[in-house]
Amino acid sequence: MNFCFLFGGSSYEHEISIVSAIALKKLLGNVEYFIFLDDTHTFYLIPKDKMQSKFFSTKAYLKATRIYPKNGGFYQKTLWGEKKLPLPIVVNLIHGADGEDGRVASLLDFYGINYIGPRNPACVLSFDKELTKMLAKECGVLSLDYQMVHKDSIPKVTLPFPLIVKPARLGSSIGISVVYEEKELEYAIQEAFEYDDKAIIEPFVSGIKEYNIAGYKSKEGMHFSFIEEPQKKEFLDFEKKYLDFSRTESAKEAEISESLKQTLQENFTKIYGNLFDGALIRCDFFVKENQCYLNEINPIPGSLANYLFVDFRNALEELSRNLPKPREIKVAYEFLHKIQFAKGK
Amino acid sequence: MNFCFLFGGSSYEHEISIVSAIALKKLLGNVEYFIFLDDTHTFYLIPKDKMQSKFFSTKAYLKATRIYPKNGGFYQKTLWGEKKLPLPIVVNLIHGADGEDGRVASLLDFYGINYIGPRNPACVLSFDKELTKMLAKECGVLSLDYQMVHKDSIPKVTLPFPLIVKPARLGSSIGISVVYEEKELEYAIQEAFEYDDKAIIEPFVSGIKEYNIAGYKSKEGMHFSFIEEPQKKEFLDFEKKYLDFSRTESAKEAEISESLKQTLQENFTKIYGNLFDGALIRCDFFVKENQCYLNEINPIPGSLANYLFVDFRNALEELSRNLPKPREIKVAYEFLHKIQFAKGK
Repeated sequence: MNFCFLFGGSSYEHEISIVSAIALKKLLGNVEYFIFLDDTHTFYLIPKDKMQSKFFSTKAYLKATRIYPKNGGFYQKTLWGEKKLPLPIVVNLIHGADGEDGRVASLLDFYGINYIGPRNPACVLSFDKELTKMLAKECGVLSLDYQMVHKDSIPKVTLPFPLIVKPARLGSSIGISVVYEEKELEYAIQEAFEYDDKAIIEPFVSGIKEYNIAGYKSKEGMHFSFIEEPQKKEFLDFEKKYLDFSRTESAKEAEISESLKQTLQENFTKIYGNLFDGALIRCDFFVKENQCYLNEINPIPGSLANYLFVDFRNALEELSRNLPKPREIKVAYEFLHKIQFAKGK
Repeated sequence: MNFCFLFGGSSYEHEISIVSAIALKKLLGNVEYFIFLDDTHTFYLIPKDKMQSKFFSTKAYLKATRIYPKNGGFYQKTLWGEKKLPLPIVVNLIHGADGEDGRVASLLDFYGINYIGPRNPACVLSFDKELTKMLAKECGVLSLDYQMVHKDSIPKVTLPFPLIVKPARLGSSIGISVVYEEKELEYAIQEAFEYDDKAIIEPFVSGIKEYNIAGYKSKEGMHFSFIEEPQKKEFLDFEKKYLDFSRTESAKEAEISESLKQTLQENFTKIYGNLFDGALIRCDFFVKENQCYLNEINPIPGSLANYLFVDFRNALEELSRNLPKPREIKVAYEFLHKIQFAKGK
């Protein structure tokens, strides 16, 4: 079974999406198809031997074949018209805006292009950290206290220090600050506003345990990755971020009790619900005093969290056999005929 | 100022979107541009003298000019290539799926096409009645009790009769049943499942007062329509539905106290927030014992609820001057350069 990785996008995470795609190309070996979405929203078909970071950073990709989505697939122009490309199933690997905000999911659904990845409602609810809080509450999953601040109205922050300030709609540690004192807060909020008009403020709990778990739903039900306790870090620096998105070496399984493992899996399942059908997602949880708190949903995690799966290729294949089917709607114009008939009388 | 109405879509509400567009054409007189999206997701530019229901029900539209969205606008093929159409601002008038589920909003945003209408997150939160309940709670707006049922797991319904059963993601009274006894419930649920895999069940409160209010945000702040008490009906039949979507005659203002009017406006404002920026929406509220409950958000109401506004054209014009601006993101490949530099060392 083959895949077509779709990556890039007009977002602050454009570059790490390239890193993700290159990592998965190396890992899976025989993936034949890559579609790059550049920051002007033009799609390019990338030959697999060009899948190196230089090809993008030097803008050499501009000479690759331009393609575009249309009913049923991606097309390219020919001398006499256009032709549809015979592509395998698309895997949405666009991190951040475009990929995770629901735009690309909507586009693929609109044009009837089959894909692995979160559907539009799943994107909307996990892309905005305020909506994720709402979702967690609705699913009966705990999360930390929080306060929203908007560019046009900054309220008094009432949470106790230390705090962590994040842009509301961004992942990958961009624009995030840890704040220990009142006097640092204003700067941290302005830093987050560089990337979004709204920011979320949460308590920064030191010494809290963090666990990452990924999973997906196949025809047989939920499948979980093993659970990792990520390296403690107060802040992700450049190298750490690069390593996160280019990871292909199997992670070390966390040494936790069977009951904690079950708790994490149960919380993951509550969040996944039917909402994330079609997607392989990673949820990051905090654990403190035997309580499990949702930190973050990554609906398109860096390098698809391949390093958490024993057989990642098999995971993608199982997932591809259990994608949500769009409902077929037949328009018969019965209603308009009725109107015309009623008016004719 | 001119507008380009976008209507149709692949949805159960395809036909009433046509009715809506024809109504607004009659009302506004000099609208020059109409784009029809058919049920195969092909776009057509419709000459304004063809804006009659027969043109669509007889499929005569198939001979109209095919167009497609692309960076910055809608295009049509020419003998030598393609040309961009010089269209005024698009007004999204696609009711139901495509228009209200966020797909068309995503598509327009993706291609940088300016439009009046709800943005993707606003669509997602108002299209699914379960998410609307969640949103109302988050905004501090009351709504009636409810219970969700899914096709694959129908729980015991614990709400007291009579009940109203609705498909979770559909408007316009399609697939809705009022149920007075246990024995009718199963049939009503199956009826809703004809249109969606999930349904919502709420108490059917007879004698409850209903009020509709529409509004939008201009540069100056919120603008409200007058408030209507819609005709009492247990059920919308064909004629009523047709009248609802083809309405252009000014409605009768409800005779209510100043304080109830304020309460309705305040609840409307809480729901609208920043979420619905760019859209003219209608909220339907119930009022019982001085409490105000959200019944429904119509992010693209039938004929845009023009009949509730004293100067509807002015409303559209004001709205068009206060549309959300997409954030410009510059990709500079600094991160990839850093990686290459680090690797080169």
